[in-house]
Amino acid sequence: MIIGHRAHTVADWKLDDLCGGAGRLDVLVRCVTASLWKSHGIRHDTDVWLILNGPTNPPVTVHFSGERLRYLNPDERSTAALIRNGLIKFKKEKGPLETSPGITMERIGLNEVLKILPSPVLLSEKGSEKMGESKTFILGDDKDPTSEEMKILNKLPSISLGKESLLSSACITLIHHLLDT
Amino acid sequence: MIIGHRAHTVADWKLDDLCGGAGRLDVLVRCVTASLWKSHGIRHDTDVWLILNGPTNPPVTVHFSGERLRYLNPDERSTAALIRNGLIKFKKEKGPLETSPGITMERIGLNEVLKILPSPVLLSEKGSEKMGESKTFILGDDKDPTSEEMKILNKLPSISLGKESLLSSACITLIHHLLDT
Repeated sequence: MIIGHRAHTVADWKLDDLCGGAGRLDVLVRCVTASLWKSHGIRHDTDVWLILNGPTNPPVTVHFSGERLRYLNPDERSTAALIRNGLIKFKKEKGPLETSPGITMERIGLNEVLKILPSPVLLSEKGSEKMGESKTFILGDDKDPTSEEMKILNKLPSISLGKESLLSSACITLIHHLLDT
Repeated sequence: MIIGHRAHTVADWKLDDLCGGAGRLDVLVRCVTASLWKSHGIRHDTDVWLILNGPTNPPVTVHFSGERLRYLNPDERSTAALIRNGLIKFKKEKGPLETSPGITMERIGLNEVLKILPSPVLLSEKGSEKMGESKTFILGDDKDPTSEEMKILNKLPSISLGKESLLSSACITLIHHLLDT
């Protein structure tokens, strides 16, 4: 699960401007690729949850189901297009609404999503616990969690992937590698 | 170093069509991001070499110097724009030509690039050797090396990162992690 602090919740942005107008949606779609793509196919055993917390109608949570997903390509623009088209269909609905096969939008935020996800753990450079049986990995986008988010996340165990501060998408690749091997 | 088997060597493509018209340039620019970006800055100790082998005037090698690089962002589109603008400046020159700070283009291919790079090693699922003192890591894009490329690459040691076949960008993230830790 990745928290997009500024990622827009309506389709008021262009596919040419993911970093600016869409509120750093580039970070989130890179995470989707890192989570769901192997060399020549999808990881059917993996799900991704993006929490969009940007204007103008937050939160919107976008769930990518690796099992049911179709039409996902590895590049940033086409994944962003799936989200953009989804937001246009979703409009002011509450959901859940499957906006394309394997992609579901719902007007819920961090607290509600955490209640439905198994064995969640926070990724943090200060994390001290072992991965153990963790099944849900929580990351921020390019910003650390807010103090309000930390009130929720502080209750969770936290793990670290090393001393280097990496892109969120790189952290996801490392987690997959740890789980694969 | 990443070999782009179909990546176009003239700017006859649009930034909206990296996967199609540019010959899977999306794969290469994801590799640039994975190679050069940490969470909030550039890896100044890392260089990237992209070998563009697509139409209409191959090969063109693009060298990103982590030490001198400016204007690099982590998203695919803006990195592709640096390459596109570079190709427009480069035209039919032989080079080397620094097309923007830290980005140099030259009309050389795999054989010539290998001669100037230190301790090269091939990444391959069949690789059997240890990373040791390797300093240059060679990957393909979404296609395996051609038989002609393999005549050159077979002379190099080869290493594997595990049984899973991963995106080239994911392999780069894993190599950085091994070198970081």
